[in-house]
Amino acid sequence: MKTVNVNLALHSYPIHIGPGVLGRADLMRPHLRGQHIMVVTNEIVAPLYLERVVSTLSGFDVHTKILADGESQKNLDVLNSIFDGLLAVPCDRQTTLMALGGGVVGDITGFAAACYLRGVSYAQLPTTLLAQVDSSVGGKTAVNHRLGKNLIGAFHQPSFVIADTDVLNTLSEREFAAGLAEVIKYGLIQDRDFFQWLQCNIDRLLHRDEPTLVHAIERCCINKASVVAQDEREVTGTRAVLNFGHTFGHAIETRLGYGKWLHGEAVSAGMMMAAHLSNRLQWLEQEELRAIEDLLSRAGLPTKPPSEISVQDFLQFMSVDKKIQSGKLRLVLLRGLGNAVVTEDYPPALLHATLAADSRPK
Amino acid sequence: MKTVNVNLALHSYPIHIGPGVLGRADLMRPHLRGQHIMVVTNEIVAPLYLERVVSTLSGFDVHTKILADGESQKNLDVLNSIFDGLLAVPCDRQTTLMALGGGVVGDITGFAAACYLRGVSYAQLPTTLLAQVDSSVGGKTAVNHRLGKNLIGAFHQPSFVIADTDVLNTLSEREFAAGLAEVIKYGLIQDRDFFQWLQCNIDRLLHRDEPTLVHAIERCCINKASVVAQDEREVTGTRAVLNFGHTFGHAIETRLGYGKWLHGEAVSAGMMMAAHLSNRLQWLEQEELRAIEDLLSRAGLPTKPPSEISVQDFLQFMSVDKKIQSGKLRLVLLRGLGNAVVTEDYPPALLHATLAADSRPK
Repeated sequence: MKTVNVNLALHSYPIHIGPGVLGRADLMRPHLRGQHIMVVTNEIVAPLYLERVVSTLSGFDVHTKILADGESQKNLDVLNSIFDGLLAVPCDRQTTLMALGGGVVGDITGFAAACYLRGVSYAQLPTTLLAQVDSSVGGKTAVNHRLGKNLIGAFHQPSFVIADTDVLNTLSEREFAAGLAEVIKYGLIQDRDFFQWLQCNIDRLLHRDEPTLVHAIERCCINKASVVAQDEREVTGTRAVLNFGHTFGHAIETRLGYGKWLHGEAVSAGMMMAAHLSNRLQWLEQEELRAIEDLLSRAGLPTKPPSEISVQDFLQFMSVDKKIQSGKLRLVLLRGLGNAVVTEDYPPALLHATLAADSRPK
Repeated sequence: MKTVNVNLALHSYPIHIGPGVLGRADLMRPHLRGQHIMVVTNEIVAPLYLERVVSTLSGFDVHTKILADGESQKNLDVLNSIFDGLLAVPCDRQTTLMALGGGVVGDITGFAAACYLRGVSYAQLPTTLLAQVDSSVGGKTAVNHRLGKNLIGAFHQPSFVIADTDVLNTLSEREFAAGLAEVIKYGLIQDRDFFQWLQCNIDRLLHRDEPTLVHAIERCCINKASVVAQDEREVTGTRAVLNFGHTFGHAIETRLGYGKWLHGEAVSAGMMMAAHLSNRLQWLEQEELRAIEDLLSRAGLPTKPPSEISVQDFLQFMSVDKKIQSGKLRLVLLRGLGNAVVTEDYPPALLHATLAADSRPK
């Protein structure tokens, strides 16, 4: 087992990574204050791992809430149904919520914890690769609005994260690959060594070799923790680099309707679009561009957005991005591989050319 | 004009109190970061004061959202309609929301600001006495759940508060009296001198004499600011004394349906119930009990709950109170006039006797 600590001003917390950690009551108990625990999960994950978690928590009053599957569940109505469940008990302020699932379950459960009785504790028990390396760490919680992803939410840090690598074995190839998009992201934005390690180890990762997986997840969490520690609430802009590829990616997801493309797939295409724009700006070499495209392809990820999305679609759906300031769309771009910057300083014509190049069938 | 500062660890902010302060652009501009402002108000307040606020904010892009009136509006659907309005512009993270209205508008607008894009700034422009002395100060924001008041929310501090005493002249007598319940509360919980001042000045207050009003509001804000500074997020329990009368009062409001009794009326009856229980515990003299009842009566406030509420009703609706810990209902009681304590240490039989005495017609 590896442990990464997220060190924040007011609250630090551990991420435990390794096989079997979902069964480790000793890792959970120190963080549980009251008697009530509400495990929120979904219909896919519940038959696989809910029983294991409930038995790990023997001695507590464990309640469960099983959501339907999918990004479309991340809305205010489903959020309210979690409150219904908490109030039916009723669960008090010492209650801990536990998010057992992927990014959707983690985001909505974290937001429920942020708002219930004006804030209770929660833990992340991520069951997808994407959630283990990204969404479960850093305290961003949210639900979607029909006009865009994650527009309604809160910064609310978990009290601990348990990333059990055993559970990754039940992921489909497609979902596993989607998680690799966020893994590769850390290499691109700030860890060139890790990018090179990924070039060498991508096949072992795709075979879900356990020590390779544990190392990759640990490295991602160390990277994410360092960014979050510098800018917990995205005030200085440092944290925005974690959104590399996401502004384009969110537009793809919103335009297609949630669920057509997985989040990681949209981010993969979005990262390539950001890389292309960086290349047009002459910030990124042609060779680096090819290396990125090659690694994403080897991981089984898309490197172009769906051809039916027009330039106008992109501009419309990108206009609600949270990073917009005074009407200017800030983008995360690469000044070389391993060095992401947040900038408004690009000619709109080059953005337009990038969108146009990618939004026509080739 | 008087100014009270709320001094918190991470963010301090001023409360400006006096006649005409709604027209003072110089008090607002230093706190406004971006170009967009969304003024949220309701159908009662809008015809009276919205134009004044909009003209004070000339030079900004001012958007408005007018809600229907009433506590029933404080729900997730209306919250979402505020997000619809913000996203239609779209408003960015530098947007400031402004709550122009009473407690309902302030609570839901503050919560909208807490969640929109994971948090934007907001200002309180309270237009009721109750909001000026209590709900606009301290950063508690929320919407209601069908099972209880303010169960879904966030701690999110305003960037400034503008309490214009001119606007109190358009309040009905009933609504003004409801505000006095929270004014009297500060005397009861921690400011015996202020209670005595109120005994002498209640008639001048009821006539809405301006200097008397400004003094009373300032004193309330100083009291509230000192409590909030000690325990911003209700962690240590200190802040819970501000809920004196509210556990009983919320049960009255929830059982009757929001809007039958005003919040301040329910709190007035709830404070008397808490005072009676304190008296049964021999913590409060008979004479003090009579003085409290006398002052509330002179203010035109109810001193008993509605007779149709049974003991069972009270126990049921009090069971979802946010102050509950491990199943025990914590109450705010008086150990003498001017000295509130938060306690679970009372014989249930005395609570029962208090509820029974007050829930039968006399």
